[in-house]
Amino acid sequence: MNIGPYTLEEYKNLVKSFHGYLAPGLLVGGFMVDHALKHLPEGDLFDAVCETRNCLPDAIQLLTPCTIGNGWLRILDLGRYALTLYEKYGGRGVRVYMDVRKLDSWPHIKTWFLKIMPKDQQDSDALLEEIGEAQATILGMEEVEVRFDRLEKKHKDIIAICPVCGEAYRAQSRGLCKACRGELVYLKTEETGVKIV
Amino acid sequence: MNIGPYTLEEYKNLVKSFHGYLAPGLLVGGFMVDHALKHLPEGDLFDAVCETRNCLPDAIQLLTPCTIGNGWLRILDLGRYALTLYEKYGGRGVRVYMDVRKLDSWPHIKTWFLKIMPKDQQDSDALLEEIGEAQATILGMEEVEVRFDRLEKKHKDIIAICPVCGEAYRAQSRGLCKACRGELVYLKTEETGVKIV
Repeated sequence: MNIGPYTLEEYKNLVKSFHGYLAPGLLVGGFMVDHALKHLPEGDLFDAVCETRNCLPDAIQLLTPCTIGNGWLRILDLGRYALTLYEKYGGRGVRVYMDVRKLDSWPHIKTWFLKIMPKDQQDSDALLEEIGEAQATILGMEEVEVRFDRLEKKHKDIIAICPVCGEAYRAQSRGLCKACRGELVYLKTEETGVKIV
Repeated sequence: MNIGPYTLEEYKNLVKSFHGYLAPGLLVGGFMVDHALKHLPEGDLFDAVCETRNCLPDAIQLLTPCTIGNGWLRILDLGRYALTLYEKYGGRGVRVYMDVRKLDSWPHIKTWFLKIMPKDQQDSDALLEEIGEAQATILGMEEVEVRFDRLEKKHKDIIAICPVCGEAYRAQSRGLCKACRGELVYLKTEETGVKIV
């Protein structure tokens, strides 16, 4: 049993090292990405869309060339556990999702995925075992075409220097940077006390 | 010269394998994360905020336990090339940024960082070499305290089944999922042609 270019054990170790622990979502996610890769036309340059912020983006980052930082992975937080790999320029691709209609024979997966019981009452070993047995049988797949007009555009930004904080920032036009316009999440700790940036 | 737990060569190879190529932003980013790690109180559990979507998140993912999928890394897209590592529960931490006031002795870095010339007219070997020489001398650092009230809250979601697409989704309340309410980016390719989901 392989997940992408890795054996199951290798993939599990990668997950622990990158994600911090062997989350069930990463194990399911590995089978999902693997399933998508197997159904994508070979040799194409592809990008990824992930429909959730939870876990799944890390499976995509581990198993494809698409990462958050290189921009080939986009997160479109629709809350669905699903991903799409699509041909970069044409937009044709495959979308893979967890199919809840196929979970009846897998009680641990169903309980976890639909949050039927609180996490501390779930049997995580049995859950991981079921995921390893179920593999791609609990997934759905469909061919899709990504609508580029619906994806957020990558703007050609300029680099401006903010007259308040003095830092460089990417923007469409000059002026105060977003942080200095109020989108702050920090207090600066000064020697004399604490003041708001 | 080390970057986090890696030699410079090891880090460069990691970057190529994860990010796809040795982007200057990942090399600078490596020194930035390393600088932040060196100034964070040891042993603390920390989370990360990244102020740009470009490149830097990958340096954080490679050099800290914080990833997009495990939620310990948040991207707050302010367009500034800066990151903060902060103590998970108390919020105290360090913010590291590119300090444009320190770039005058580094013409290739300045040209690249401020986009003074188009990319194809820049000398990328000389740029990488300068970054390797400059290391942390081009960075600024400040102690900060993250304002949790300004960070997007992680809601306790339920899992609902959408009556239209039949898929499970995370939500605050039941009803149609976001995708079926119009936040679509796909066309489904049916045997009979193409129709909008």
